[in-house]
Amino acid sequence: MGNSNNEVMEVLERYSQEINNEIEKVLSTIEPVSLKKASIHLTKAGGKMLRPALTVLVSEAVGGDKKDAIKSAAAIELIHTFSLIHDDIMDQDDMRRGMPSVHKLWGEPVAILAGDTLFSKAFELVINTKVDGTSLGNESFERINQTLATVADACVKICEGQAFDMGFEGNFDVKEDEYIDMIFKKTAALIAAATEAGAIMGGADEKIVSAMYDYGKLIGLAFQIQDDYLDVVSDEKSLGKPVGSDITEGKMTLLVVKSLAEANDKDKKRLIEILKFSDTSPENVSEAIDIFEKYGSIKYAYDVAMGNVENAKQLLEILDDSEAKQALSLIADFVVKRQN
Amino acid sequence: MGNSNNEVMEVLERYSQEINNEIEKVLSTIEPVSLKKASIHLTKAGGKMLRPALTVLVSEAVGGDKKDAIKSAAAIELIHTFSLIHDDIMDQDDMRRGMPSVHKLWGEPVAILAGDTLFSKAFELVINTKVDGTSLGNESFERINQTLATVADACVKICEGQAFDMGFEGNFDVKEDEYIDMIFKKTAALIAAATEAGAIMGGADEKIVSAMYDYGKLIGLAFQIQDDYLDVVSDEKSLGKPVGSDITEGKMTLLVVKSLAEANDKDKKRLIEILKFSDTSPENVSEAIDIFEKYGSIKYAYDVAMGNVENAKQLLEILDDSEAKQALSLIADFVVKRQN
Repeated sequence: MGNSNNEVMEVLERYSQEINNEIEKVLSTIEPVSLKKASIHLTKAGGKMLRPALTVLVSEAVGGDKKDAIKSAAAIELIHTFSLIHDDIMDQDDMRRGMPSVHKLWGEPVAILAGDTLFSKAFELVINTKVDGTSLGNESFERINQTLATVADACVKICEGQAFDMGFEGNFDVKEDEYIDMIFKKTAALIAAATEAGAIMGGADEKIVSAMYDYGKLIGLAFQIQDDYLDVVSDEKSLGKPVGSDITEGKMTLLVVKSLAEANDKDKKRLIEILKFSDTSPENVSEAIDIFEKYGSIKYAYDVAMGNVENAKQLLEILDDSEAKQALSLIADFVVKRQN
Repeated sequence: MGNSNNEVMEVLERYSQEINNEIEKVLSTIEPVSLKKASIHLTKAGGKMLRPALTVLVSEAVGGDKKDAIKSAAAIELIHTFSLIHDDIMDQDDMRRGMPSVHKLWGEPVAILAGDTLFSKAFELVINTKVDGTSLGNESFERINQTLATVADACVKICEGQAFDMGFEGNFDVKEDEYIDMIFKKTAALIAAATEAGAIMGGADEKIVSAMYDYGKLIGLAFQIQDDYLDVVSDEKSLGKPVGSDITEGKMTLLVVKSLAEANDKDKKRLIEILKFSDTSPENVSEAIDIFEKYGSIKYAYDVAMGNVENAKQLLEILDDSEAKQALSLIADFVVKRQN
């Protein structure tokens, strides 16, 4: 288990240098200096670079040339970074990746602009695929168009997902399918766009493009559900934050949604009370976890995540065998094996 | 003079219905309702729709089919609206187009998201030019790509321009070329993108595309400089705000930049004092205007705006005669003839 996680980390690192080079190049011309610094800040903060690696790996797995996908990969990472910067403003989160968030360092106006700039630069990057020369001829225009459509669609979904998430606050009638739709939009849509973009830029046929989108969507959903799950089964050291933080913050998770659907009136009422507390104690957290366990919600979340990963791996069977395909399978496993 | 202004207003109105239809269609699918309403709000507030009309007019003037340009036109308007929403948050402006601004009605988080959503939808619109069928064949992919490059470039410039503008606050060493570069990025770049996009989607050759970009840039610069000029020569009724508001707010304008460059030490010091005042009196405003006049800055601004308009009209000579060309010429005049 630990070994395959190491293998995944090695794959991610292998690509991150090249992707970072693309990002650095496209952001280097931003003016004035304050806006450039604010725009670059989070890209230097050492994210896992999972999304862009997926783009490149899928493009390789469908037989494409890495060079054709690298700018789209970098673009996906910029979209991810843009959404983190704006989310941190909206959620008033002062820390991100162990560093002060962009609005904390440069103020909200510059942080809004930095996000907008990264957004614009992401589109510029995809378009530059052609300008900078690829192995492709004129068909690259069509591929670039399709990739931009994928990216733009994911951006709309990210905004919608964040709006739904904010709307769920204090709403304890959220149904499981509404919750899944929210995390699809907020988290999984961009991962699906990452894998779809790789397939498009790699020149895959429609059937494979669609399968790769679904693969990305499924591991994206599993990724978020695993986050929900880890919050109550992991330990503070692995998480980098106290166990049960989601409970303390009253966040909607699959554990909450499932428990509220299954619990008797008394337990339901108590769980809602705990989630609404403004200063939740460790005893409250334990009590909530007991309710999750009583209704099998923790195992349920794990099973849903595992099921998504298994289905994602099945979808990879459409691809010919390759090292890249092997890596995509390992990444699917990694999503539910990671401890943080 | 009044008559040609009326003619321009008629042209703008003629196109606005179709453009609004495109905007309405592409925004109709946004979820949840709160995000949809916040995203639509300003598009319903009756802007002049100058930018999208320019896109369609240029596409017609270069011999293109209006159908091919209408979605790009609508996209330009969405980019403009997105930038207004985010600017209003940054500048804490509570009113826009006579209505409460988006963040005032829905709060900052939803306003940030609404801007981001319009941004994404703008790119979606341009891409949809192909999906929805045009008079074009496969060359449309290349045109769409070029248009997207133009739009993305303008978006980066808008962000940079706003960052420069914020950085100029309280900086009285701003040189004229720095000021012009700021208003180019903040205001003129999107107008240039509007006219360039029209030329690209209309299938113009490179030389005409470049001339149309420059035409847009010049009238965009004239537009902003005319704003600076009108602030001191117009009347409260026409402006919809008190004369000298820019002075009261201590804003950098061409009048200020020019006067600071020309004035003797005493007048320069006094002008800076007035601009820094937190509660500027009508007497202070008059005194600042006297300093502007003493150094010929008001006439200078007018001459610069007029010169830009004349140069813009010269650039139109590359086009064959047409009704659309005629309208583009009238719009150039309108920029310096309008009273608000």
